[in-house]
This record gives sequence, C-alpha cells and structure tokens, in this order.
Amino acid sequence: SILFVIVSMVVLCASTLPEWRAPENRSVEEQSRYTAESVREPSGIIEAICIGWFTAECIVRFIVSKNKCEFVRRPLNIIDLLAITPYYISVLMTVFTGENSQLQRAGVTLRVLRMMRIFWVIKLARHFIGLQTLGLTLKRCYREMVMLLVFICVAMAIFSALSQLLENGLDLGTKNKDYASIPAACWWVIISMTTVGYGDMCPITVPGRILGGICVVSGIVLLALPITFIYHSFVQCYHELKFRSARYSRSLSAEFLN
Amino acid sequence: SILFVIVSMVVLCASTLPEWRAPENRSVEEQSRYTAESVREPSGIIEAICIGWFTAECIVRFIVSKNKCEFVRRPLNIIDLLAITPYYISVLMTVFTGENSQLQRAGVTLRVLRMMRIFWVIKLARHFIGLQTLGLTLKRCYREMVMLLVFICVAMAIFSALSQLLENGLDLGTKNKDYASIPAACWWVIISMTTVGYGDMCPITVPGRILGGICVVSGIVLLALPITFIYHSFVQCYHELKFRSARYSRSLSAEFLN
Amino acid sequence: SILFVIVSMVVLCASTLPEWRAPENRSVEEQSRYTAESVREPSGIIEAICIGWFTAECIVRFIVSKNKCEFVRRPLNIIDLLAITPYYISVLMTVFTGENSQLQRAGVTLRVLRMMRIFWVIKLARHFIGLQTLGLTLKRCYREMVMLLVFICVAMAIFSALSQLLENGLDLGTKNKDYASIPAACWWVIISMTTVGYGDMCPITVPGRILGGICVVSGIVLLALPITFIYHSFVQCYHELKFRSARYSRSLSAEFLN
Amino acid sequence: SILFVIVSMVVLCASTLPEWRAPENRSVEEQSRYTAESVREPSGIIEAICIGWFTAECIVRFIVSKNKCEFVRRPLNIIDLLAITPYYISVLMTVFTGENSQLQRAGVTLRVLRMMRIFWVIKLARHFIGLQTLGLTLKRCYREMVMLLVFICVAMAIFSALSQLLENGLDLGTKNKDYASIPAACWWVIISMTTVGYGDMCPITVPGRILGGICVVSGIVLLALPITFIYHSFVQCYHELKFRSARYSRSLSAEFLN
Repeated sequence: SILFVIVSMVVLCASTLPEWRAPENRSVEEQSRYTAESVREPSGIIEAICIGWFTAECIVRFIVSKNKCEFVRRPLNIIDLLAITPYYISVLMTVFTGENSQLQRAGVTLRVLRMMRIFWVIKLARHFIGLQTLGLTLKRCYREMVMLLVFICVAMAIFSALSQLLENGLDLGTKNKDYASIPAACWWVIISMTTVGYGDMCPITVPGRILGGICVVSGIVLLALPITFIYHSFVQCYHELKFRSARYSRSLSAEFLN
Repeated sequence: SILFVIVSMVVLCASTLPEWRAPENRSVEEQSRYTAESVREPSGIIEAICIGWFTAECIVRFIVSKNKCEFVRRPLNIIDLLAITPYYISVLMTVFTGENSQLQRAGVTLRVLRMMRIFWVIKLARHFIGLQTLGLTLKRCYREMVMLLVFICVAMAIFSALSQLLENGLDLGTKNKDYASIPAACWWVIISMTTVGYGDMCPITVPGRILGGICVVSGIVLLALPITFIYHSFVQCYHELKFRSARYSRSLSAEFLN
Repeated sequence: SILFVIVSMVVLCASTLPEWRAPENRSVEEQSRYTAESVREPSGIIEAICIGWFTAECIVRFIVSKNKCEFVRRPLNIIDLLAITPYYISVLMTVFTGENSQLQRAGVTLRVLRMMRIFWVIKLARHFIGLQTLGLTLKRCYREMVMLLVFICVAMAIFSALSQLLENGLDLGTKNKDYASIPAACWWVIISMTTVGYGDMCPITVPGRILGGICVVSGIVLLALPITFIYHSFVQCYHELKFRSARYSRSLSAEFLN
Repeated sequence: SILFVIVSMVVLCASTLPEWRAPENRSVEEQSRYTAESVREPSGIIEAICIGWFTAECIVRFIVSKNKCEFVRRPLNIIDLLAITPYYISVLMTVFTGENSQLQRAGVTLRVLRMMRIFWVIKLARHFIGLQTLGLTLKRCYREMVMLLVFICVAMAIFSALSQLLENGLDLGTKNKDYASIPAACWWVIISMTTVGYGDMCPITVPGRILGGICVVSGIVLLALPITFIYHSFVQCYHELKFRSARYSRSLSAEFLN
C-alpha cells in the first residue's frame, strides 16, 4: 500500500507542479466572462479534469489508509476536502438555479467558493520539505506566535491611540483627516511598525512625527524579538525533518532492494 | 493572601481579555458625540463598570499587599493609578463645570485624559510572560537602548544637515521644498534609515539621491547592530522568566496538593 | 602559464576597475543619439578598445588553458562570450543594413544586445572574493533558494487570491480598481511581504487591511527563515574561500621566492 | 596630565550634551535671516561661545599631549580642526567682504562651511563607548564594507540596466518616463533593494514588475550577508572596548585612591 501512495504522489507531483499556478491565471481570464457564463468552456473542462483528479486521488488515499477515522481528522485531508467540495457546490448551484437569471445574485458566493480552491496550494506541502518544516514550526512555536501577536496588538493599541490623539485629537491648527479614527490609525501603525510604509497616510504634525519615529524603531525591535525564536525553532524542525526523510528514503530504498 | 491574589488575577484575566481592545472601539464611536454629551450613556455605563472593577481590584491588591510602601513605588501599580484616575477627574470636571457650555473648552483635556486609559493594556503584562520578558529586557539593556538612540541621533544630525544642504541649500536649479528645514529633513532621515519610506518626501537632485542611498544602507547597518544586543538580552530574560515561572507554578501546585 | 594568467589578471584588474561603471554612463549619454548614429564616435572608439581588450584577454586565456574542452564549459567563460559577441553582432548589423533606414527597426534588438554588455560586471567575480563566495553560496544552497521561492510563491498565491477577493470581488460598496486581477494583486503581495511598500496600490477596505497586516507580518517571518540558512552557508563558503586563497597566495609567493 | 584631560572631558561632556542638537535648531531659525545678516546676534553669540570653548579645549588638548606630531595625525583631532576652522573662515569672509553686497554671492559657500559644524557630533565619540565601537568596527571590517559596496554596485548595475530596458527600452506600448536613464533606474534599484520603497518610481509593465520582485528578494539576501559579518565584528569590538574601559577605569580609580 506504501508503494501505491508513492506512485500516486509522484503522479500528483507531476500534475500539480504545472497546475498550481494555473487557477490564478485562469480565474483572471474568467473574471470578466465567468459571472454570466456556465462551466461548459475550455477553461471549465481543464478545471473539471483537475477536480476529478484530486477527487480520485483523495478517494484512493482514503481507501488506502488503514485508519479511516484518523485519516479524516488529519488537517491536510480536511484542507483537501475544503478545496474540492466548493467546486461541486458551485456546479450544483449552476444546475439547480436557472441560467443567467439568478447567477448574478449567486456571483459573490460563487467567487468566494472558487477562491477556496487556492488552498490546493497547501496540498504541495506533501511534496516539499520546506513547507512541511514550516507547518511543523508553526505547530510547535504557537507560544511565540501568540507572543508576537500580543506584542503587535499592545503596540498597535498604544501607538494608534496616541497617534490619533496627536494628529487629529489636539486642535493644533492642522487636522490630519487620515487619522480620523483609531482603527485607521491602527492601519498606519501596523504598516509603519513592519517598515512597509505605503505612504497613503503619514503624520504631518511635529509631535506626530516624533511619535512616528519612536513607533517605527520600537516596531523593528518588537518584531525582531519573537521572529528569532520562531527562526530557531524552524532550524531545529528542518534538521529533524531532513534527518527523518533521509532515514525514511533509506528504508524505502532498502525495501526496494530486498 | 497569595490565594486571594491568584483568584483576583484569574477573574481579572477573564475580565480584561475581552475588555482591552474595547477602549479603542468605544472611543471611536464616542469620538463624534462625546464632546457635547455627558457620561450617562450605554457606553459610559460599561466604562463606569470597568473603571469600578479596576479600582476595586487595585484596592484589594493594595490591602492584600504586605509592604504598603513598596507597593506604591512599583511601576505597574503607578501605571494602574495613572490609568484609573483620569476617569474620576473627567467625571469631576463634568460635574463641576456646567452642561455643554464649558465642555467644548475642556474637550481637548478630556480627550487627553481618556487616551491615558490606553495604558490599561500594559496591565496585561501581569498575565503574559512575553510582555514581562519585554519589560525585563528593556530594564536590563538600557545601555543598548541608549546606544541605539545615540546612533540614530548622530546619524540623523549628520544626514539631515547634509541632505538639507544638498537638496535645498545649494542653488542647483531645482529646490526641493520638502527639505526646507533640518527638522523636516530629520523626518526623512529617520523614515529612510528604518527603511519605511513613506514617499511623502524624496530627494530629487543627483547628489541628494547618492546621499540617500548612503543614508539608507548605513541606516540598515547602524540599526541592526544594537538591536541584536537587545535580542540576546531578550532571549536570556525569556529563559530566566520561563524557568522562574515553571518553578513558581510547581511550588504553587505543591501548595495546593498539601 | 600561471604567471601569464596572473599578469593578464592584474592588467585586467586595472583596466576593468575604472571601466565597469562606464557602460552605464556611456549608454545614458548615447541613449538619445545612438539610435540614429553609428559606432564611429568617441564613445564608440572607447567601446571598441574595451571590446578588443576583452576579446584578446579571452583568447589568451583560451590558448593558455590546458583543457580546452573544460574551459568552454565553465560558466564564467560562457558569460565572457555572451558579453563580447553582442558587440560584433551589432557591428555586423550596422554594416549589413544600410544607414539610418533600417536601424530604427533594429533599434530594439540593438538595445537588448547592448544591455547584455552589463554582464561584464560579473567578470569582476574573478577578482573579488566576495563575489566568488556569493557564487559558491548560490551553487551550494540551491535547496534553500528553492525553499525561499516555494514559500514566496505559496504565500503569493494565497494572499493575492484573498486580497483580490476582499478588495475587488466582494460587493462592499468600494471597489478598489488596483486589485482588478490576481497578477496585479500578486505585485502588491510581493511588495508588501518584502516590506518595500511603494504605495502605488494599498488596500482600502477594512477586511483588506486586516489581510494586509497578516500578509506583511507573515511575509517578514517567511522571508527571514530561508535567508538565515543562506547566510550560514555564505559564512562557511567565505571562510573556505579565504582559507583557500590564503593557501594559494602562499604557494604563489613560495613559487616566486624559489 | 591625565587628570587635566579627564577634567576637560567631564566639562566638555556637560557642555556638549545640551549643545550638540543645538546647531540644527539654530541653523534652522537662522536659515531665513542669516544670509543677509552678520554674526552680531543672540544666536551668533552662543555660537561664538561654543566655538571659543571648542577651540580652547582643542588647544589645551594639543598642549597637554606629549607627542605633538602624532596628535595632529589622529583622525578625531583632524575632525575637530575641520569643525572649528569653518567658523573663523566665515567670520573672516564677513569682515573682508563688505556688508550685504557680496554676501549673497558667498551665501552658498557660507552655508557649506556652516554645515561642516555638524561634524561636532562626531566629537561625542570620545564620550560614548557605542560610537567608539562603531568607529573601531568600521576600521576593522573595511573588507566587509568593500564587499557590501561591491555587492550593491554589481546588483545595481545589472538590475538598473535590465529595468531600464524592460520599462523604457522595449516598445511595449507603455513607456515609463521615470526610467528614462540608467542612473534614474539606479535610484529605483537602491531604494527597492533596501526595501525602502518611496513609491516615487514603480515599474508598471509586467516584465518590469517580475524583475522588481526578483530585485527586491535578491536585495534582501545580498544586503543581509555582509551586514551579519559586520555585526559579528561589532560584537567583538564592543566586548573588547568594554573590557578595556573597565580595566582603564579600574586603574584610574586605583590612581585616585593612592
């Protein structure tokens, strides 16, 4: 049964690699004409074949798996299911609703469902050690992720309130309309702290700019701290997985030789 | 008495966690109508309950604490006091001043006081090990913080003076109005050195751009140096606190078992 | 023969160092008049001398090399060839096509060929240990480069699809025209994840901004992870090459002394 | 003589610390009226006192120093001289040229000279261990600085030529006027590679944007590599200097006790 999984994996690899960027390009060219037309089109056919393949692959993996119960509960399989089902739902919706008339109404729902297909990308995790490492890292250092989140939230709360006060709250002659509310200031704080700086909102008063400077520097310091924890965990996970996969492939080749 | 503090902490945890983002949202919706209206409103009632809770919690902690004198001097308690008192001051101000007439005048002061409530967020530090670590790190590596500050100030002084000279001072045909003064150039320097780059001011002359490139690269180098010191101190503090809290919770559980 | 290579290297060093920035400046001043004029100009003469030098140097190195077959296959020599040949092709094109009449047509091709001369810069790799280290690092950690690429592509696919959906797909009143298609959103994602943030496209809806914040933070985390792997490989390569070149120069000086 | 230097240092510390940000503010308020007026003003008087102090301090240090010849050659003393002399030159120029008539002509020269006073800031290096460490680091890892410079130049040459070609050179319908010349493209490359991203120039064609993405990612990788070398050197220098200064102050206190 291991052999069967390996064969399906190799075939899947070949099929997904040119495929996984395709949904993007396809959905772009469909963007204009898709809302009014149905699935009976060249791009729709390719889509149907892909979906069929993934469904078959999923079923095969379900049949092959020994522990059915455990199989359903694994996150990667749930993602598979979430990536496949929207297609059938949208097909069903197209069939049950009449032509053109109600599709306009269902357009938004359809588009949301179609976007869920982007999670096919996560299926690649089965074939790339890097993505597996990333997944394992995220699972292990959830404490550091929470810490990062808490840091960002606390800094965002303090700096957004202060910047909103300094830029808009005080009657200093120039009122900056961009900082009308605290959530808007939050957007500025997150964009400044991560040193992105789109420039759609900038402080213009002198105290606001001093606060901006403090915010940016403290943002660099705050963000750098938990990320390095995550990095150390990542390096450890990577070496573990590399060691495990090396041992696994060695045992596999030993099996083939016998 | 330890048990009492623990119970109040757990209850506080439950009360603050959904609460601590609330001041933001609340103050936003109040933004428009608050200046002319008084505290007798739904949002005001929630506010009053929160303040009441924090006051009670603070008083309980003050009574429970053995060393009253030391309690007052601890920074977290001072922050508590600073976060609570503005509310009472603003209530008193609303009571003593008449309705609507003088509130417009007192609006700015009120808004400043209300913003101080954002420091409630720092109260979370009692419950998150990450924030405690951050506080301990900041306390320990004040030398590195000063070094970071000195680096930024020195670089800011040199680059802002030079950029102001190159962009506006020399009569090179194109005068960049953004660089009219050195403080304005300072804002550009801090935004460039931290690689934020809002784009509200950019050098347009050739020597100014060359200086800008040098400024950005040296800014990356300069900022990276002390931050890594801070990071090392942070890692050390984190492991110390984790070890201490693990031992503390072990001693607590031992106490419960006995 | 080693001596001959060293002498040509030293001379080349002297000739390339003031030279290698020249193509840029030259092609700028030629930009306007070059499309209509031929090579018989002062800048053209300098160009011809440079090309002549590089050709001679290349031929000498080819004659000097013991293993002709291996020589042709080494990447640096192929780059040499690619950098030199375009000049002769463009000269031939100018000779065979008449004056002015067809040059306008061939202008784009000529410009592309001329730009290939920029790869002369890579010839510097022979003389700088830093560039050699970089080349060796890139060769060694192609796995990490692939990992970095996969991370970026996966994140780009997910975030661009989601941001396009949130900013343009849902009928939330405000449609952001910048996010009309997924490739356009891809540009925004890559610019945000690397914290560049040009500001030509920004999310304006509230869910889009929340996604933007998540995208930026995850981008910082994702990009930092494989880069540190590359860094460790780089440090190792650098010390190896420094050790090797130290030993090499010691053996050379020993040769000179004998 | 050591005692004398220490006393002058302590006094200088007290005088420079509130002083060193002053040149900025002063030159800003002088900006408008200074070109037409002379030094006889309140701000001019403070300036004269400062200059006088620094001159006296410099002369005292020259007299105190045992090895006169070595003293002149030390870089910090040369910077002292460069920071002081411009004042006397500008005073002389004001005296010898008549009033108002020729000052307009000499305005640019004066402004350049006045800006040189910003190098007073570097005098602080005598009193801050951080700045000394930075100086020592820059002196020691000039190899890594050159490597960083070579990396940036090579990447800039390649990417600016390619981006100029893709955005402006090829006749793809949309010509981006911002990329008219290679030096202009250079500015875009340096701003993108350092992830600043002002947004004054952005690629708009599809191949230009793909190149932009590659440029940004490779910029992050390239810049991170030599900076970490510099960082390691910095940490080493810092610990050396801290150890040396600790030993030095211990020997000083031992001297005081005896």
